Amino acid sequence: MTFLYKSDPTRGLEWARLFAQKAPELPFRIWPDVGDPGEVRFLAAWMPPAEIMATFPNLELLFSVGAGVDQFDFSALPQELPVVRMVEPGIIDSMVEYATLAVLALHRDLVTYAAQQREQVWRQIRVRPAAQRRVGILGLGTLGEAVSRKLAGFGFPVAGWSRSRRAIEGVTCYAGADEMKAFLARSDILVCLLPLTAETRGILGADLFAMLPEGARLANCGRGGHLDQDALLSALDSGRISAAVLDVTDPEPLPAGHPLWNHPQILVTPHIASMTQPETAVDVVLDNLKRHRAGEPLVGLVDRGRGY
Amino acid sequence: MTFLYKSDPTRGLEWARLFAQKAPELPFRIWPDVGDPGEVRFLAAWMPPAEIMATFPNLELLFSVGAGVDQFDFSALPQELPVVRMVEPGIIDSMVEYATLAVLALHRDLVTYAAQQREQVWRQIRVRPAAQRRVGILGLGTLGEAVSRKLAGFGFPVAGWSRSRRAIEGVTCYAGADEMKAFLARSDILVCLLPLTAETRGILGADLFAMLPEGARLANCGRGGHLDQDALLSALDSGRISAAVLDVTDPEPLPAGHPLWNHPQILVTPHIASMTQPETAVDVVLDNLKRHRAGEPLVGLVDRGRGY
Repeated sequence: MTFLYKSDPTRGLEWARLFAQKAPELPFRIWPDVGDPGEVRFLAAWMPPAEIMATFPNLELLFSVGAGVDQFDFSALPQELPVVRMVEPGIIDSMVEYATLAVLALHRDLVTYAAQQREQVWRQIRVRPAAQRRVGILGLGTLGEAVSRKLAGFGFPVAGWSRSRRAIEGVTCYAGADEMKAFLARSDILVCLLPLTAETRGILGADLFAMLPEGARLANCGRGGHLDQDALLSALDSGRISAAVLDVTDPEPLPAGHPLWNHPQILVTPHIASMTQPETAVDVVLDNLKRHRAGEPLVGLVDRGRGY
Repeated sequence: MTFLYKSDPTRGLEWARLFAQKAPELPFRIWPDVGDPGEVRFLAAWMPPAEIMATFPNLELLFSVGAGVDQFDFSALPQELPVVRMVEPGIIDSMVEYATLAVLALHRDLVTYAAQQREQVWRQIRVRPAAQRRVGILGLGTLGEAVSRKLAGFGFPVAGWSRSRRAIEGVTCYAGADEMKAFLARSDILVCLLPLTAETRGILGADLFAMLPEGARLANCGRGGHLDQDALLSALDSGRISAAVLDVTDPEPLPAGHPLWNHPQILVTPHIASMTQPETAVDVVLDNLKRHRAGEPLVGLVDRGRGY
């Protein structure tokens, strides 16, 4: 019975150390050193191997090492194989930090000031009180909820939108397609924290931008596939959107020469908003293995119908 | 009996509107339209006029429109004239926002990512958990205290240093010259929120940098005069300091061609960290006028011995 890890090998060594310490009875291996393929019962991967069941016929669980599973091709995964997203405190904390950084940067005109620094221009922009800057969180899963609570603590009027209704103290919650328009109309800064699914692909496009207040600001902390990049460039040119912070792009890495790189109203970071922390991730994985053995519900189990 | 305002005229009009609404009995004027100089009893200014008592012989109170009074030449102000710093919620909230933005930017490597964006380079830096990034707040006045509380809420181990001992829940408080070394030795990110006085001028220099952990990060939210800019450039070159966010410089505006502008490890903003908000500032000023009439202690009264 082997636990196989297939992702960044440096972090794999940290997982190995933590497994040796916390679950010494469970053999732990790092791809491509798989040992006997028939022994592999659990796989933690960013990208699973092709022909997964032919390779590991006794696989019982597939863990994503990231918060999302949009990188998986579900049509290549057998229907009965449980797939588990990573829901662990390290991912949540790092996303709360990044989303707060992005919202404060947009609120306090940091994208403009970075452009002014390149031009060596000293020009002040009047500070607008947080109470007059409405923040909207698109997606109220574990990450969106934690981010919305933190931002409310700065005095921003915070609202969130999700497919099904949520209730979060201090956050105005909108739900479903019918309420999207009202949610967008009051969002001076929009933060995308949606999962990437067939329904949400390209959602940050011209139609959505047209429903935001003139000059709204955008932070994409989701996936590159959420954003219509050409629509963003047009919206920045027309003034409909005034600044954007993008942690994710399409493709990644963003190639040199791509127009997103040198746009003065865009700040790009290389998909670092949220990172799984081995210390806490291994605890969550081991807890899920215990639940699996006991026949209890898994934390982060993906509903394939929803796609997350 | 006139209240005279001498600072940014656009904001002066907002003060005028608020005075008309909240204290209609008190004549309010905006410099240079002073009216009868003998009627001027109260002056709110960023920079008071030369020969202040010769100009306004019946002046009773001088208010700074900013949080600091280091721009005042105290030798030119009569000893018996009370000078009042601006202590108002708008200043505190905007500084909490900015200092949080600066610390998160330094913690999450945003200065490096901005430099990489200029070079069109996509390179990830591993996220370090907040619990492993020690933040130090230099100066625990009203602003330093509010900032330290907010940052502790992100899970950073936060310490503060002040001249005389403070006690803030969740923040390790160091005090006095004797404890400065221990405070600096544990500060991976140092935030300057000191008042600028004869004692603190140039404090952010080579001696202080030598006491920080190798590769520490710096945010100067105080005054340009706190920082020895040449020492910072040397410390960045040697790796002693790895990145800096500077809201204040010397001189201001920072002239084109100055070496701070295009250093890849420095982010410059044009002295916008904290701004007086007319709505709340006028309330504080009117409350102080009431205290003055009643002979009660003024909020923000400057102790000339300390210089703040």
